[in-house]
Amino acid sequence: MHLHPFDDAIALQRRDDGLYEGRTHPAWANMVGPYGGITAAVLLNAAWIDTRRLGEPLSLTVNFAAPLADGEFTIEARAARTNRTTQHWTMALRQAGEVACTASAVFAIRRPTWSAAELHPPDVPAAEAVPPVASPAPVAWPARYEMRFVRGGWIGRDSAGEPCDDSESLLWLRDDPPRPLDALALAALADVFYPRIFRRRQRFTPAGTVSMTTCFHADAAALAAQGARPVLARAQGQRFVGGFFDQAAALWGDDGQLLASSQQVVYYRE
Amino acid sequence: MHLHPFDDAIALQRRDDGLYEGRTHPAWANMVGPYGGITAAVLLNAAWIDTRRLGEPLSLTVNFAAPLADGEFTIEARAARTNRTTQHWTMALRQAGEVACTASAVFAIRRPTWSAAELHPPDVPAAEAVPPVASPAPVAWPARYEMRFVRGGWIGRDSAGEPCDDSESLLWLRDDPPRPLDALALAALADVFYPRIFRRRQRFTPAGTVSMTTCFHADAAALAAQGARPVLARAQGQRFVGGFFDQAAALWGDDGQLLASSQQVVYYRE
Repeated sequence: MHLHPFDDAIALQRRDDGLYEGRTHPAWANMVGPYGGITAAVLLNAAWIDTRRLGEPLSLTVNFAAPLADGEFTIEARAARTNRTTQHWTMALRQAGEVACTASAVFAIRRPTWSAAELHPPDVPAAEAVPPVASPAPVAWPARYEMRFVRGGWIGRDSAGEPCDDSESLLWLRDDPPRPLDALALAALADVFYPRIFRRRQRFTPAGTVSMTTCFHADAAALAAQGARPVLARAQGQRFVGGFFDQAAALWGDDGQLLASSQQVVYYRE
Repeated sequence: MHLHPFDDAIALQRRDDGLYEGRTHPAWANMVGPYGGITAAVLLNAAWIDTRRLGEPLSLTVNFAAPLADGEFTIEARAARTNRTTQHWTMALRQAGEVACTASAVFAIRRPTWSAAELHPPDVPAAEAVPPVASPAPVAWPARYEMRFVRGGWIGRDSAGEPCDDSESLLWLRDDPPRPLDALALAALADVFYPRIFRRRQRFTPAGTVSMTTCFHADAAALAAQGARPVLARAQGQRFVGGFFDQAAALWGDDGQLLASSQQVVYYRE
């Protein structure tokens, strides 16, 4: 069977002791270890494929406690509490007996209610009108996405331009090759923004996500309706101080509906 | 010893088996169980007071898995991974053997780096120029805070006004009685905003926080400099759909520095 590289990378085997076994995938390699978004997706997948799972993803927090080494890992996923319409999971990813990530997820059964949106997408050209741009970075994972930057595109490997007044990036985004959107892919997309400090300072500095939380607003039907078309993605840093910054992100469908909001805290040096 | 009601409510006793024992405090009672912010603070406190703790709070996620009953609880806090400058904790709060909350926290040692802010405070009158307003709600916890609303104040118990176009609240805020700010108090302040759906619809509906994540930007020295003076607090909903909404919040010192950013997902009915 020929799997999409996303599905290949998040595949897990359940062992007799209840732990899941997975492995890092070279197509998702980052500077050190895999792209954080694929690690978020595989942690969510451990709860998603569990036969005890109730409903669909509502919230996911992943704490990146240590760099992953290339190779195998185990995931322990526990349903900490199951209610009538929500279920709380905790997960731990280990390599060589040491915890590399902790995570928690809430799953929920959604139901029709009064609804409204306040975080509206910026006014942008249609995806087809914005050319895709490949990353100049010598790592594998950016090639897993088609990225059409409206604002705040890749900075050059040797960039040392004038610092920007803000750290915003805004882009049309989808899996490459295209893959119909689901909550697992959305969990990975939410980490797609290179560290906002690169954008703000127009240069590279060692940086890595420490913790990331994503809130999901779209159910399976809404994600299926979005299909494999590009989503609009925006991220911006909020404060950079003391070696850490936070960034807020949003992902909208091409109908303008907010699919997910996300926040992460990122380590940086210098 | 006469403790401030905040310190009284987050007090924990370490048992021989390593678990911490605490109890809900009537001064922090909400409709059902305690105010979520005090629960967030007591979970953070379990890691904070641990002799193995490294550095200061950087990020905290609390998942509210079930309503707390009034009375005793235990907290299990584990240092999942300790690095040179960061430490990852996981916590679980239990009552009668059942998990009521799961949580994770990252602690970090900050160091001088390049710094900048992008999420600036709105232009508002000074705290002294805005009168404090008591909550009309028949619950105890709002009296633990002095709230001076610039925008989006309390709605009446029987309010059924015209729905608002947005769900923003903006207020000057501090503990009542005043208490010098620290990370534990800040963790509680970040949950102070009544559910954004009340504001947007100008009426009550059953609602409760499901998961909350706060990123801390201020170290102990910066928090001590803020002291017991009011902080500026802002929250707004992002999308309300399918029985859940997310809200983004920010808390600034009176010098305009971002002290914390926070995101939460909230259940609502109707």
